[in-house]
Amino acid sequence: LDYQHVQVPFEITLWIMLASLAKIGFHLYNKLPPVVTESCLLIFVGLIMGGIIYGLNDRSPPVMDSDIFFLYLLPPIVLDAGYFMPSRPFFENIGTILLYAVVGTIWNVFGIGFSLYGICQVRAFRLQDVSLLHNLLFGSLIAAVDPVAVLAVFEEIHVNEKLHILVFGESLLNDAVTVVLYKLFRSFCEMPTIKTVDVFAGVGKFFVVGLGGVLVGLSFGFTAAFTTRFTKDIRVIEPLFVFLYSYLSYLTAEMFHLSGIVAIIACAMGMKRYVEANISLKSHTTVKYFMKMWSSVSDTLIFIFLGVSTIGENHEWNWPYICFTVIFCLVWRALGVLVLTFFVNRFHVNTITSKDQFIIAYGGLRGAICFSLVFLLPEFHRKKLFIAATTVVILFTVFVQGMTIRPLVDLLAVKRKRESAPTVGEQIHIRFLDHLLAGIEDISGHWGQYYWKDKLEYFNSKYLQKILLREYDQPKSSIVLLYEKLERKHAIELAEAGQLGHGPAHPSLLGFGFLCSSNDRTVRTDQKLEDTQNPDVLDNMQEILARNLYRIRRTGPAYNRHTLPGEPEPSEHAKEILILRHKSL
Amino acid sequence: LDYQHVQVPFEITLWIMLASLAKIGFHLYNKLPPVVTESCLLIFVGLIMGGIIYGLNDRSPPVMDSDIFFLYLLPPIVLDAGYFMPSRPFFENIGTILLYAVVGTIWNVFGIGFSLYGICQVRAFRLQDVSLLHNLLFGSLIAAVDPVAVLAVFEEIHVNEKLHILVFGESLLNDAVTVVLYKLFRSFCEMPTIKTVDVFAGVGKFFVVGLGGVLVGLSFGFTAAFTTRFTKDIRVIEPLFVFLYSYLSYLTAEMFHLSGIVAIIACAMGMKRYVEANISLKSHTTVKYFMKMWSSVSDTLIFIFLGVSTIGENHEWNWPYICFTVIFCLVWRALGVLVLTFFVNRFHVNTITSKDQFIIAYGGLRGAICFSLVFLLPEFHRKKLFIAATTVVILFTVFVQGMTIRPLVDLLAVKRKRESAPTVGEQIHIRFLDHLLAGIEDISGHWGQYYWKDKLEYFNSKYLQKILLREYDQPKSSIVLLYEKLERKHAIELAEAGQLGHGPAHPSLLGFGFLCSSNDRTVRTDQKLEDTQNPDVLDNMQEILARNLYRIRRTGPAYNRHTLPGEPEPSEHAKEILILRHKSL
Repeated sequence: LDYQHVQVPFEITLWIMLASLAKIGFHLYNKLPPVVTESCLLIFVGLIMGGIIYGLNDRSPPVMDSDIFFLYLLPPIVLDAGYFMPSRPFFENIGTILLYAVVGTIWNVFGIGFSLYGICQVRAFRLQDVSLLHNLLFGSLIAAVDPVAVLAVFEEIHVNEKLHILVFGESLLNDAVTVVLYKLFRSFCEMPTIKTVDVFAGVGKFFVVGLGGVLVGLSFGFTAAFTTRFTKDIRVIEPLFVFLYSYLSYLTAEMFHLSGIVAIIACAMGMKRYVEANISLKSHTTVKYFMKMWSSVSDTLIFIFLGVSTIGENHEWNWPYICFTVIFCLVWRALGVLVLTFFVNRFHVNTITSKDQFIIAYGGLRGAICFSLVFLLPEFHRKKLFIAATTVVILFTVFVQGMTIRPLVDLLAVKRKRESAPTVGEQIHIRFLDHLLAGIEDISGHWGQYYWKDKLEYFNSKYLQKILLREYDQPKSSIVLLYEKLERKHAIELAEAGQLGHGPAHPSLLGFGFLCSSNDRTVRTDQKLEDTQNPDVLDNMQEILARNLYRIRRTGPAYNRHTLPGEPEPSEHAKEILILRHKSL
Repeated sequence: LDYQHVQVPFEITLWIMLASLAKIGFHLYNKLPPVVTESCLLIFVGLIMGGIIYGLNDRSPPVMDSDIFFLYLLPPIVLDAGYFMPSRPFFENIGTILLYAVVGTIWNVFGIGFSLYGICQVRAFRLQDVSLLHNLLFGSLIAAVDPVAVLAVFEEIHVNEKLHILVFGESLLNDAVTVVLYKLFRSFCEMPTIKTVDVFAGVGKFFVVGLGGVLVGLSFGFTAAFTTRFTKDIRVIEPLFVFLYSYLSYLTAEMFHLSGIVAIIACAMGMKRYVEANISLKSHTTVKYFMKMWSSVSDTLIFIFLGVSTIGENHEWNWPYICFTVIFCLVWRALGVLVLTFFVNRFHVNTITSKDQFIIAYGGLRGAICFSLVFLLPEFHRKKLFIAATTVVILFTVFVQGMTIRPLVDLLAVKRKRESAPTVGEQIHIRFLDHLLAGIEDISGHWGQYYWKDKLEYFNSKYLQKILLREYDQPKSSIVLLYEKLERKHAIELAEAGQLGHGPAHPSLLGFGFLCSSNDRTVRTDQKLEDTQNPDVLDNMQEILARNLYRIRRTGPAYNRHTLPGEPEPSEHAKEILILRHKSL
């Protein structure tokens, strides 16, 4: 037996296997009450495993290594989050998200830090040896909302899109603030005296760390897109580039002490649309599947490790400090959300309701990032107290808040996510309004969201697409793509029912119908025809749709401020007419 | 800048990136003469990189770590090879393959070892200090044909299936022999005296190492299949199990000093059909894609590392020893193939031609396995000579043999792989003949290949499928599956051409047609109807096919010795008739 030789890969594989089997187990065993979230169960499994290891070895089980967490477990989750981030609600609420992430986190850090320092001054608690700086350092690591924990809980409760993106976006973007403050206070702890210059340098670092991360991410993202231009002959390694470049962006950002999380999100969001257009459909399925798989395994491992690491002898218990930490975390977050939302609502028409505010405040879960940061603290005599307090805060937020948030969402009747995808009519209206608003902003000289979006779209179609896309074509409208997809689905259904070319069209397809003509630029939509199940009408519409498919395909976006309506190529046009004529005869 | 922190993952990612970019580069830059194979170019890139590192650092570049090679780079390639192994030709030629792999390798080891010992006795060469045992040890590592190198070359030259499987199968299965002989001679080198018992124990080990590997692999494979029964609710982690279990089988086999390569192949071949039936189509695409991607990256990295490791100061040059090594490798292999094939041909109707024998002998490429094994040798004063000789043999086989084999295949007009897939008619005939031969063997009491295959199939359908498959159904015949696939493809084509439900059926689909009835068990095939492009006939056939699809789907294999023809469920049957009636009205 030669265990030494294979130990490292063997144990890694076994841990992943345990995580996967645990996941399967929970999905099979569905007798648990619905409030019990998966993250709680996983931590519970981890606690049991930690207990077993502790009992067998009679010493503390290995704690989660911060390096393993930050270098291997966190990136897949953040990549997944960035790649599947719904970009529209994210950019619509970017101002609010940044306000929560930057100002909110600073508020929480200083609030928690100073008030804990106040607690330390009470003589009866015997905490006078904890300095203000150490309290602020602790505040900086405990204040940040954790993306992994938030994602795990919010994916299960299905709140409305805006609420979800506010909490989740904040948890992702506050990384830049946390990194800066944590490192700032850590270096202050080690400095003999602190000069005013250092404090100002710290403030300047915010921008460097955040914007630097975005820049690193975007440059890697665009390089990735550019690389996939040349993979046509060797499709099989296409998915690799998505993973390699985003991981490199994360590592590079970490190397320069920038925010890795921000970098990887920028990279994923930047490359997504170009990569998707360049790589084959199967490569894309692989990318999506592997991303989901990886992040789900990482997520499971993190919660199990959290549980395992909790058991052991590295805790120092002090009731007042730990209790007040939990209370201050809750109170300062609630206050911060209230105050910031007050300002946000003054400048927005579409306000954040008080119910939503409650869920934002209550959804501020802490997780593995705090845990890894507290273990990275330099050795000092109260480190074990900080570890204990962090563990309690994490367990409290994940168990108590995580398990009660779903009943609370039900009780308050918080607006839920709509289950159905937007109808074609809605899509058309949304696009129409976008162009309208961009035009209004342009005329009134207001540099608003739509103005910038339009400019960006122009820059994208004029330069980026030409450089980054292999086959630069007039992009297909999403409506046309949808129609093609439905038509294909319908065809497969027919083939499977053995009715190809014989039976009447499947009625479910005809729940929507539209006629889109590129020449007179009219868009007519007739939706929800389920009342008129008259087969003749349906047949007729199906006919029209099928006949017009060729022309629809060549339709560009309905309106574009920067291009004249392109002349259809005469030969193409003539050919098309000929085909249609021929068919109708 | 904090490079230390991210060094390990950063450098790994960069190496993979380099490998992928090199691969893209070769596919883009197609001005090279066609004889230059990818593996040669990759070694060349490695040589250049090694030279650069050597020039910059003024010390030897890092050699390929044997642990990294055996634990991380080799498994993906072997998994890919095992998973996509064409099982029919493999099992049809298993006897010949085993003969080449076991007897042939032993022949080569002792042949090369003893004749090199003879060379060492020549006083003028100054090699008298190399003992017989060391020569045999060297022979055991240099004799084995390398699967990675063989795959890289044979995938490009497209020889016929039998020839390919003979060389490739040998290169995979000789691992068990190499492992045993190498470890045996290594332990003999360290022993003071060698007893006869030790030699017999060594012979016994062959069976333990080989059969043990098969057992470990199969048990992990079946566990994997069993696990995927329960992943219905959590599709996203399905692909993971394929990789985890096969990797675990490899590691477990290595841990017990069994053949890891044999284990992972047995695991992959054992689980494939069950896993494929259990997991979703998208999961399967991901599995296939990732396997190909991983193995192709591993493969690229191995050749680059080979090049890099060649540069440096760990070589001792001795002209006669190195030249005679190359010559003996060629001569003994050629002799071995000739002698073994003589015996093989006496017992087979379908003989191996002399051209094929030449290619088998000439295609015995050496690669990274020899290279890793030679670095694993215990330190002794002639190790550097062995390293030099191994490097030269590898470079000689990969460059000279690898580059000339394609022109030789052209020159000798070796039978090529047929480009087209077998037609439906052929498939039916093959299956018919299989059943016929199984019946003949059964009646004549001969325990031949078909007899065992039939028994295995019976065991499979009676026990294994019921345990390992989620939805145990009468398995669909491959012909029906093909028909369904074509029908679906046709439907998509129609939908994309905008003719769904209107135009006549696509003629290309009707290149074949068949009618398969489950009741009277007749199979009629009408193939290659391209002459009769009469649309009426085609339409009629399309009609018959479409009408019969439902019934076809429920058809089991055309003949099964172990089951009675099952009664169709009456209600199902009635419903079906009703539907057909309804449609024809």
